[in-house]
Amino acid sequence: MIKGQNIVGCKHISLTGESFKAIDPATSKHLEGDFEVANEQLVEQAMQMAQKAYSTYKNITNTKKAAFLRAIAEEITALGDTLISRAVAESGLPTARLLGEMGRTTGQLRMFADLVEEGSWVEAVIDTALPERTPLPKPDIRRMYKAIGPVVVFGASNFPLAFSVAGGDTASALASGCPVIIKAHPAHPGTSALVGEAISKAALKAEMPEGVFSLLHDSGYAVGTALVKHPLAKAVAFTGSYKGGMALVNMARDRKEPISVFAEMGSINPVILLPETLKKQPETLAAKYAASITLGAGQFCTNPGLILAVKSDALNIFVDGLKKAIEVVPSATMLTPGIWQNYQNLSQGVAGEAGLDVIARSGNINQELCNQSVATVATVKASDFIQNYKLREEIFGPWSLLVVADDVQELETVVGTLEGQLTTTVMAEREELPAYAGLLDKLADISGRVILNGVPTGVEVCAAMQHGGPFPAASDSRFTSVGTGAIYRFVRPIAWQDWEDSLLPAELQDSNPLNIWRQVNNEWTKA
Amino acid sequence: MIKGQNIVGCKHISLTGESFKAIDPATSKHLEGDFEVANEQLVEQAMQMAQKAYSTYKNITNTKKAAFLRAIAEEITALGDTLISRAVAESGLPTARLLGEMGRTTGQLRMFADLVEEGSWVEAVIDTALPERTPLPKPDIRRMYKAIGPVVVFGASNFPLAFSVAGGDTASALASGCPVIIKAHPAHPGTSALVGEAISKAALKAEMPEGVFSLLHDSGYAVGTALVKHPLAKAVAFTGSYKGGMALVNMARDRKEPISVFAEMGSINPVILLPETLKKQPETLAAKYAASITLGAGQFCTNPGLILAVKSDALNIFVDGLKKAIEVVPSATMLTPGIWQNYQNLSQGVAGEAGLDVIARSGNINQELCNQSVATVATVKASDFIQNYKLREEIFGPWSLLVVADDVQELETVVGTLEGQLTTTVMAEREELPAYAGLLDKLADISGRVILNGVPTGVEVCAAMQHGGPFPAASDSRFTSVGTGAIYRFVRPIAWQDWEDSLLPAELQDSNPLNIWRQVNNEWTKA
Repeated sequence: MIKGQNIVGCKHISLTGESFKAIDPATSKHLEGDFEVANEQLVEQAMQMAQKAYSTYKNITNTKKAAFLRAIAEEITALGDTLISRAVAESGLPTARLLGEMGRTTGQLRMFADLVEEGSWVEAVIDTALPERTPLPKPDIRRMYKAIGPVVVFGASNFPLAFSVAGGDTASALASGCPVIIKAHPAHPGTSALVGEAISKAALKAEMPEGVFSLLHDSGYAVGTALVKHPLAKAVAFTGSYKGGMALVNMARDRKEPISVFAEMGSINPVILLPETLKKQPETLAAKYAASITLGAGQFCTNPGLILAVKSDALNIFVDGLKKAIEVVPSATMLTPGIWQNYQNLSQGVAGEAGLDVIARSGNINQELCNQSVATVATVKASDFIQNYKLREEIFGPWSLLVVADDVQELETVVGTLEGQLTTTVMAEREELPAYAGLLDKLADISGRVILNGVPTGVEVCAAMQHGGPFPAASDSRFTSVGTGAIYRFVRPIAWQDWEDSLLPAELQDSNPLNIWRQVNNEWTKA
Repeated sequence: MIKGQNIVGCKHISLTGESFKAIDPATSKHLEGDFEVANEQLVEQAMQMAQKAYSTYKNITNTKKAAFLRAIAEEITALGDTLISRAVAESGLPTARLLGEMGRTTGQLRMFADLVEEGSWVEAVIDTALPERTPLPKPDIRRMYKAIGPVVVFGASNFPLAFSVAGGDTASALASGCPVIIKAHPAHPGTSALVGEAISKAALKAEMPEGVFSLLHDSGYAVGTALVKHPLAKAVAFTGSYKGGMALVNMARDRKEPISVFAEMGSINPVILLPETLKKQPETLAAKYAASITLGAGQFCTNPGLILAVKSDALNIFVDGLKKAIEVVPSATMLTPGIWQNYQNLSQGVAGEAGLDVIARSGNINQELCNQSVATVATVKASDFIQNYKLREEIFGPWSLLVVADDVQELETVVGTLEGQLTTTVMAEREELPAYAGLLDKLADISGRVILNGVPTGVEVCAAMQHGGPFPAASDSRFTSVGTGAIYRFVRPIAWQDWEDSLLPAELQDSNPLNIWRQVNNEWTKA
C-alpha cells in the first residue's frame, strides 16, 4: 500500500483537502493511491524544518553523511519489485530500463557517499601567514566549499528514479550538506512516495536531523511556485522543458534574494556525419542512429534530434537505411498523455515547414495501448534550415531531422546557426578529422560534451562528465547535473582569516585530520 | 600627452562627436585631456574583433598567454610617475596609496601569469574507458575548463588601478583566455587611457590577436548598456554600488541569451567585539577601528560600517576612544563629487533615524580642498537597529555605526537580521571563542570571509582569498573577484568523449605534455 501523504521532515502528514491519482500512460487509466496536494502551510513547515536541519547537517561528519547516502541506496534496493512495478505502471517505461535506472540511482548515491567520505571535494586552499612580510604582514587565509542551505528539487518525468526523488540532484545536494525539499513529479507520485519513504527511513536510521528531507505532492504549479519563492530556499534543481525551466529561472530571479535555478532544459544534440565515414559505413551509421533516436521513445535530453551531413551517394544510402529502420521501429508508451500529445503536435506540425520532407514514420504501432510513440525522421536542405529557427527547437520524443548541406562550407554555416547544446557528436574516420579542426573547435564552443563516433544518448556517471551546455541547453553551463561535479551547484566558498585552528572546519585545520588533498601555499598535498 | 581616443582592437580610433574631461576632486576643476565618448559603432566593432580574437586567443599556449600578462605588468611599470600623478589628480587618493595599488596591479598580472604558465588551474579530470564493462562499456571522458568568450569589464572608481582597466577582473579574464572590452570609469579617464595604451602595446609586443583588448569611454550609461546587451558578450565584471550592480544584473538577465554579471556590490562588514577582549584592550580596539573606518576615506567595499557589542563599562571606554580618534581624523579628498555628495546625504540623513546618536564627526577638515570626507561614527541600541532596515544599508565613506546590545542573546538577534556580507570580523580573546560557537557559525553563513582579530580592510591577493559574499554583497557568492580563484568566473567545463588524443587540448592528452596536476580515474596525479 503506497502512502499518498506528503512527507515533511521525514514524517507523513495527512491532509483533508484535494488529492489526485496517477495515470498509467499505457492504458490512460487511474492507478491505485490518492496523493494529497500539499498546501502553503506544509511548504512553510518543510522549509522551516529544512533550515533548522541545515544548521547541524551542514557540519555533520563525512562518515555520517556517507552512511546516510548509503542507507538511502539500501532502502531503495530493498523496495525491489514493489518500486519497479509501480514505476513501470506510472511511466510506461519497460522493466529492464527501470532496473537499469535503479542501479544508476543507487550507484549515484554510493558514488557521492565515496566522494564525501574521501573528503577532498571541498577544495581546501590554505595560504599560511607571513608575519614578517613588508610593507604589510600576510595573514593566514583558508578557504573551502560549504553547503548553502535548503535546496528545492523538482522530480523529472523522464527519469522516474535517476532524476527524481532520490536522483542525481538529491544525491548531490544531500552530499554537499544541504537539506532537500522535493516537489514530486505528478506523473509518478507513487514511485515518488515509495522513494520518499525510503529516504525518510534512511534518515531516521542514520540519525539525521528530520528536516533534512521533505517531499510534497501537487498536480499543479502552486506548491512548486511557493517552494521556489520561499525566502529560505537557496537553490533549485530542475530537469525538463525549456518553458518549465525558464519559468522557474525567472521566478527565482524576481525574489528579494535571487537564487540559482539549475535547469537542464534539453537540446537537439547535433550529430555531424563526415564524408569519409559516411562513405565507408552508411548502413552501420543508419542502424546506430535509428537505435539512438528511438531509444526510450526518444525521451532523453540527449536524444539526437539533428543530423548534419553533406550530400553524397553514401548519404543517400544512409537515408535509405534510416528510413527502413524507422518505419519498422515498434512504438513505445510515452511517459504521459501530455508528452504524447505534445510530440504528436510538434512532429506533425513541423512537417508543414518549408522544404521539410518527412521521409519515415513508423508503421509498427501497438494499437492495444495508449500514448504510443510514432518514430519520425525528416530531411531538409541546409539552405531551408538556416532560415527557419523553428527547425532548431527541440521535439521531445523519437524524432530527428537530417539537414543536407551542399558542401562542407554550408555545413559549417549550419553549425554557426546553432544555439547551446548539451552534446554534439562527430562521426568520422580518424584520418579525416584533422581537416575539420575549425569545425571541431566551433562544436566545442556550443557544447557541454563533444563525442567522437558514439551516440549522445547514455550519459556516463563519473567525475569527468559534463551534463549541461551553454544556454538554452541549461540555465548555467558552468555546472553539471550528472557526475560528482554536480555537488558544486549547492556550495559556495568561505574563507577564514587568521582563525583559531581548533575552531576551523576539520578540512582546514593544520594537522589535516581528514587526510584530504589540499592546496597549501600553491602546492597540492596531503601533508 | 594622454590620448583621449577610444581603443578598439588595441588601436586608437578618433571620433568627431562628444567628449568629456576628467575632474580633479580636490579642486573640482577640469584636468587636461578630452576623452571621446564612444558610440554604438565602436561597441559593435570592439565586440566583433573580440569574438574574432577569441577563436585563437582561447587556444593560445600557456607560455604566450603568460608572456602577454607579464608584458602588461612591464608596460604599466614603465609608465611610472606619469601614471601615478595622473591617478592622484583624478582620484584624490594619495601617492603612497597609488604606488601600493600599482604594485598590487602588476603583482596580480604576474600572479595570473604564473597560474596559467603552471597550467593546473584548468582542473583536468580524466576517466579512462572500460571497453569490457558490462552491461555497457564505459567511454573515455575528459573534462577541463575553457574560456567562454568576450568579457566586458567595468572599471571601478575606488581602485583606479587594481580594479580598473588592468585590474583583477581584466587580469583574470585575460588569463582565462577571454578577450576583454573595458568600459572605462569616467572618474579616471586619463588613468584608464594610459593603462589601456599599455595593454595595447603589450598585446602587440606579445603578438596577441588585436581584438583581445578594447577600451571605450563614456561619461554616461549608453556605452556600458550597449556592451552588456551585445549578443557576443559572454560575461560582465563590475565593482561598485548595489544600484549600479543590480542594473547590470537585470540587463544581462533580460537578454535573449542571459549572461552572468559578477557584481561585487559592497556591504557593511559587521565587526563583533566580544566582551573579554573589549575588557582587556578597549583603547587599542578603538584606535584600530578608527584607523580601519577612515582608511582611504572609508572608500573600500570592506569598510567596517557596523560594529556590534554588548553594553559594558569597557564598551564605554571603547566608545570614548573611538569618539576622540574620529574627531581629529584629518579629512581626505573623496573620489568624485558624486561620491562626496552621496556620503554627505546619507551620513547626515541617517542621523535623523530613531534612536541613532552621532557621537563623533571629524572637525579636522581641510578647508583648502574640495570634496573632503567628514569621518562620522554613531551609536544605536540593538532594539532600534533590529527594527530599522535603513540602518543595515551601506554608507560608502568613513562612516560606522556601533550597535549596543543588552546581552549576547540580543547581539545574536542583531546578527540574525543581517543580509549577506563580504566579510564579518570577530575581535576576541582566544579563550572566550568556544562559548560563541553558534554565533561564529551564523557569521560564516552570511559571509564570504570571516576574520579573527583583524580588520576587514586590506584584501590579500592569494589563492585562498574569497572576495564575494552572499547576496546582496555580491551577485554570485560562488565566485571571488580577488585572488587566483577569480579566473573561474570566465570559464566553463567542456567534456570530450572518446576523442582522438592528438586533437584533444594538450591538458587532456594521454602523455600530459604540460605536466599539470590532473584527476585521473579519481586520483590526483601528474603522471
